[in-house]
Amino acid sequence: MSTEVKLTPAFLEYLEECLVQSRMEEVLQNIEDMHAADIAEVIDRLDTELAGKLLRALPNERSADVIIELDEDVRQALIDEYSSEEIARDIISELDSDDAADIISELSDERIKEVLDIIPDDQQAREITELLTHEEDTAGALMAKELVKVNKNWKVMRCVREMRRQAEEIEHVHSIYVVDDDEILLGTLSLKKLLTTSTKTPVAEVFNPTVVSVTAETDAEEVARIMRKYDLVVIPVTDEAGKLLGRITIDDVVDVIAEEAGRDYQMASGLTLDVESRDNVFTLTKARLPWIFVGLVGGIFSSRVIDYFDLSQFPEMGPFIPLIAATGGNVGVQSAALVVQSLASEGGFKDSVMSKLGKDFGVGLLTGAVCSTVIFLANYMLGKSYNLSITVSAALFSVIIFAALFGTIVPLVLHRLKVDPAVAVGPFITTTNDVIGMFIYFTVGMMIMM
Amino acid sequence: MSTEVKLTPAFLEYLEECLVQSRMEEVLQNIEDMHAADIAEVIDRLDTELAGKLLRALPNERSADVIIELDEDVRQALIDEYSSEEIARDIISELDSDDAADIISELSDERIKEVLDIIPDDQQAREITELLTHEEDTAGALMAKELVKVNKNWKVMRCVREMRRQAEEIEHVHSIYVVDDDEILLGTLSLKKLLTTSTKTPVAEVFNPTVVSVTAETDAEEVARIMRKYDLVVIPVTDEAGKLLGRITIDDVVDVIAEEAGRDYQMASGLTLDVESRDNVFTLTKARLPWIFVGLVGGIFSSRVIDYFDLSQFPEMGPFIPLIAATGGNVGVQSAALVVQSLASEGGFKDSVMSKLGKDFGVGLLTGAVCSTVIFLANYMLGKSYNLSITVSAALFSVIIFAALFGTIVPLVLHRLKVDPAVAVGPFITTTNDVIGMFIYFTVGMMIMM
Repeated sequence: MSTEVKLTPAFLEYLEECLVQSRMEEVLQNIEDMHAADIAEVIDRLDTELAGKLLRALPNERSADVIIELDEDVRQALIDEYSSEEIARDIISELDSDDAADIISELSDERIKEVLDIIPDDQQAREITELLTHEEDTAGALMAKELVKVNKNWKVMRCVREMRRQAEEIEHVHSIYVVDDDEILLGTLSLKKLLTTSTKTPVAEVFNPTVVSVTAETDAEEVARIMRKYDLVVIPVTDEAGKLLGRITIDDVVDVIAEEAGRDYQMASGLTLDVESRDNVFTLTKARLPWIFVGLVGGIFSSRVIDYFDLSQFPEMGPFIPLIAATGGNVGVQSAALVVQSLASEGGFKDSVMSKLGKDFGVGLLTGAVCSTVIFLANYMLGKSYNLSITVSAALFSVIIFAALFGTIVPLVLHRLKVDPAVAVGPFITTTNDVIGMFIYFTVGMMIMM
Repeated sequence: MSTEVKLTPAFLEYLEECLVQSRMEEVLQNIEDMHAADIAEVIDRLDTELAGKLLRALPNERSADVIIELDEDVRQALIDEYSSEEIARDIISELDSDDAADIISELSDERIKEVLDIIPDDQQAREITELLTHEEDTAGALMAKELVKVNKNWKVMRCVREMRRQAEEIEHVHSIYVVDDDEILLGTLSLKKLLTTSTKTPVAEVFNPTVVSVTAETDAEEVARIMRKYDLVVIPVTDEAGKLLGRITIDDVVDVIAEEAGRDYQMASGLTLDVESRDNVFTLTKARLPWIFVGLVGGIFSSRVIDYFDLSQFPEMGPFIPLIAATGGNVGVQSAALVVQSLASEGGFKDSVMSKLGKDFGVGLLTGAVCSTVIFLANYMLGKSYNLSITVSAALFSVIIFAALFGTIVPLVLHRLKVDPAVAVGPFITTTNDVIGMFIYFTVGMMIMM
């Protein structure tokens, strides 16, 4: 029994040494019992030359399994070293159609054609070609062609025989699909039924006609939502007419779910592209600048507001500008995050918009009352003037209520307009709150201080 | 074949009317073909009385399936209306052990005892009692006891016979586990092997000894990480000695993955508790106040910094306070989010800390150069003095570089200290950046403006 292998720096160093000295048998012995995902982790950390050496030393089936687990950039660097012949015969032939299509889709157009022409198994080549036609982030692009299907007119005995044949090709059998003569998906046959029914019973009598399916055009996020909702481990994919095309297993969808949640978070943090720490300085800066610019424009607007009120008339108000701006931003971001998460997890609200705003008004009122009291006491202790203390607290109170409502309304409106509300949560909300916050602060100041 | 049912308000109203008028047969006819998750959605939207009426009208097996799909608060309200006898006989008996344990764990201690005593199937009662002993958010709490296992000494024929018997009890067969006489997990037997091997072959000769497992104490997030890494649909759970205890299917883990990603996002937004839009005003405010207070304290510190430099000496610097503070906050949040996401997705870095900081310094340099140039031009066009324009741009440049580095270092340090770095990403980073930003701004101002 094997559990996860933790890679130690010492083990990595040892492997590197073996590879440099071409002690390949020693290398293979050391990684023999490791899962492909763990070997991929080793390779991700080696330089390209040693990585290629290790990969080529593995038996074809193993190396194919490892290749699909590699980081995309590492994989591309390594695959560049393979000839089209090797890709087709040594890698693609060993893979399920969905993984094969993923790898081929990363090649240049020219090489895609070459590789597809060389693949020895015509049916696999056809299946991969079909998978490549589906748009990215759709059910069609996620699905694999490998599945077990039986005809509704067959008897259970024939099913077992046919399944035995089909299973030769297929690693894991998650569901047995029942189709009619036109390959139209009718339902599923549970393994339980197959094991517990007399072998002469026709499939039509024992299959389960309730099956949730998606079409090839269904958006990947929608597939994820449906699989989560119905607790599915595998979902069949059909064409518009209901013809069974393939199936999607949950492990591919888990990545979609995690990426989606991560994307919301990235957007909320003001990153406009899907970037990672390891991207280069220019890519990272490009992803970061747009929202920073929005912030700069907001900053200019704030400065115009303060200029308009003429800060030199009440210079003692200046030091509390950061406090007012920051609190407005913090409250707004909290409200918006709550809305975005509700929208993401439920796809909608049970409460009406008005009752939601009513509640946020309540939260704003309570938060505002507590915060303005605390700040009033702090200012009193710091020996600030009564008028200034009242101004800061009154402005803070108003800014908090405004921010709570604004933070709720903006993502709701965006959702209504079919714009992803997560874009609103970060810099946009804080920036707008800054400008409005300054306006409120100095308006209150003018009323009280003059 | 059924696909997802979209609930229209008209359909809901119609169902409500039927329920009020006790036209139960009509109700049942309408929801007959619906998936339990869809019926649960209907019930989530009904008031408790009608919901209970609908639930009781369903056949026991259906109503049990629906109950596990309900929102927790709706479920608790409805279950309160059931007697312990009904819970044990009508609901629990129909469920898999993990779902049964989940529902029982939501009852009061007194009722838990009552229900466990009544459950007709002794084995089920024992299994649930065992599951209830595991701590929340561990593999033990997530697992179900239902699984198919075969002894390594059996021949394939006996396996099929035994599986037929075990399958009577089990809805889905994901994996066939191979154990020895002491129930120690040895590996898995693939359905493919079972179907394609001669019936007289002993299991010991054909099973796959490579199986990734977790122990009952393993943290739920760790289970999720392992299942994602190895693309597993189901994972076996053992005790410390390796004895097979149960299995976890990915659908339960998907929720853990989504919740984890959501929690990072909530923390980054300055929410301290796991709250939802629909919680009440006090719960929401309580989750929000802690970071708002941190922001207030930061605001006071900022005001002390500005007081220290005496704003009345350079009142023209005041209007740009929001710009400096906001940009520092935005840059810092971006840096921190990138670190948090890398830590979450990779569990660590390939790059060293120094090379990471070097890169962030580069990003800061580039972003700072672009932004300070833009602001210098804006100030020039707005007719600001040369000295003020230089001050704002130079301070902005420094603040951006500081924020980029600070936003990277804080989560890295927290990670080193085994504190979840996501807590740092929101208000803490923006607040600290505000204070330091003011210090930088006025230090630069003093050097240039005086």
